[in-house]
Amino acid sequence: MSDVVIVGSMALDSVQTPFGSADRVVGGAATYASVAASLLAAPQVVGVVGADFPQEALALLAERGADLEGVERVPDAKSFYWSGVYDYDLAGRESLVTELNVFAEFHPVLPERYRESRYCFLANIQPQVQLAVLDQLNDACFVMCDTMDYWIESEPAALAEVLGRVDLALLNDSEVRQLAGTPNLGRAAERVLEMGPRWVVVKKGEYGATLVSDDDLFTVPSYPLPNVVDPTGAGDSFAGGMIGLLAREDNCCNMNLRRAMASGTVIASAAIEGFSLGGLQRLDLAEIERRYETLREIVRFEALELQNL
Amino acid sequence: MSDVVIVGSMALDSVQTPFGSADRVVGGAATYASVAASLLAAPQVVGVVGADFPQEALALLAERGADLEGVERVPDAKSFYWSGVYDYDLAGRESLVTELNVFAEFHPVLPERYRESRYCFLANIQPQVQLAVLDQLNDACFVMCDTMDYWIESEPAALAEVLGRVDLALLNDSEVRQLAGTPNLGRAAERVLEMGPRWVVVKKGEYGATLVSDDDLFTVPSYPLPNVVDPTGAGDSFAGGMIGLLAREDNCCNMNLRRAMASGTVIASAAIEGFSLGGLQRLDLAEIERRYETLREIVRFEALELQNL
Repeated sequence: MSDVVIVGSMALDSVQTPFGSADRVVGGAATYASVAASLLAAPQVVGVVGADFPQEALALLAERGADLEGVERVPDAKSFYWSGVYDYDLAGRESLVTELNVFAEFHPVLPERYRESRYCFLANIQPQVQLAVLDQLNDACFVMCDTMDYWIESEPAALAEVLGRVDLALLNDSEVRQLAGTPNLGRAAERVLEMGPRWVVVKKGEYGATLVSDDDLFTVPSYPLPNVVDPTGAGDSFAGGMIGLLAREDNCCNMNLRRAMASGTVIASAAIEGFSLGGLQRLDLAEIERRYETLREIVRFEALELQNL
Repeated sequence: MSDVVIVGSMALDSVQTPFGSADRVVGGAATYASVAASLLAAPQVVGVVGADFPQEALALLAERGADLEGVERVPDAKSFYWSGVYDYDLAGRESLVTELNVFAEFHPVLPERYRESRYCFLANIQPQVQLAVLDQLNDACFVMCDTMDYWIESEPAALAEVLGRVDLALLNDSEVRQLAGTPNLGRAAERVLEMGPRWVVVKKGEYGATLVSDDDLFTVPSYPLPNVVDPTGAGDSFAGGMIGLLAREDNCCNMNLRRAMASGTVIASAAIEGFSLGGLQRLDLAEIERRYETLREIVRFEALELQNL
């Protein structure tokens, strides 16, 4: 097992979905990704929180073996706060409030021992901040990054530099199309590959995710759930599950990337079964394995011989 | 190999996509489904055309072994005509013109030998017409039906009767949600199962398709294409490919339904590589097998052992 650095937001979220709501609960990309990764590996967390961030969330991470030295605590200040409301079919969401608070002045400094880590997930943050983290990593063999429409629009040069330095870019389908400027998803992913990363993962929400590289193409459906409660953090839990499995196995061959995608899918499925960290907290290795095997069965179909009939 | 009855529209289409346009070319659900099925089995086609329907399209079907006795030709009348324009990402389309013409008075009468056929695909038509066909089948063991939002809204009782009499309902995701009145796709599919069919296939366009029954769940992604030209007829080609494989193997076990879904996916992929029947005409058994194996490789991932680490 190898170490994993996870960098991104740690937040308080207020969320409304068709199935309920939650007020000022623990969220944030780095939080979800770290709890997800902690199921499979020991994450080294980099983030910033204010005085209002619940101590129990940090205690939960610590209990699960996460290294929290990289989490800066700013007294007398407020944590990043996001509030949003989801559509009827959970496919879209509207942001109601985004208060950066302590996150506005986030200049991550990696503790010395983090710098030797070989795996890293740069969650969605300003590309300049992602670059500053990359500058501090000495020995990374596999770096994944996320981003968002806002940075694609407003910081194309810095984002291009990030894409030129990471191994895998994790984007949702509309972001891939936006970044590549073309509607065909396969061709759009190929254009993103030309920007630098060896792999592109296209997240498609309830439709699953696709991995594209010059020598591989893999698609995994989402894990079927009778009750989706809150999709917040699904993408970050997916990313945390992926990087967690890669670090656990310390292997980045194509087949292990496929297995990481399936692990991420399974872990994300648990994340959306509850608000905040509730779903992830109920997950264990036995349940990950069970869902993983279910997913394998869902996509299985036997060979076909037509020409000899 | 068993016989397959295919019932539905035979049309002229004018189509605009981001990649080009075609004017008054051969289309229609039964046309696409029959050409698709003819790659794997011998379809018995039931439809109605006017004097303007190109003789070459009927000749193409006949050459491929289709039985056209059930195709009524109305002299001095026009064929069903549809015209539409697709969105930038091909996900949505707008109908510009729909002229029923001869299709308005479509009262299918099955030739005697069709009535003993064991497989049938009822493409999207008025549910009362689908029921009239069902009444004429003596020995069908496997009937698939399609429908559309318009019938779900305007003919719920007749559609419910159809669903109570078919083996498999083929619907796109928005239709499944509409029919079931619930946004969670898995639960919506379960509600449709409760309406009668043993299997529900949820078509998700570029995201593939999912098969749901009380004892099976299967998802297949779409076949990756660098060049999509025109998605018209994709769903009907998928259906024709499915029923064609089932009839060819004369086997409706769950695994053969999975293989039929993959065959339908592959055949639909060819359909959308050209306008009208161009893409399907270029397909052969060797290419179906090749794409089928590619699809198997795209979804493959190996088992995972976590607990013994």
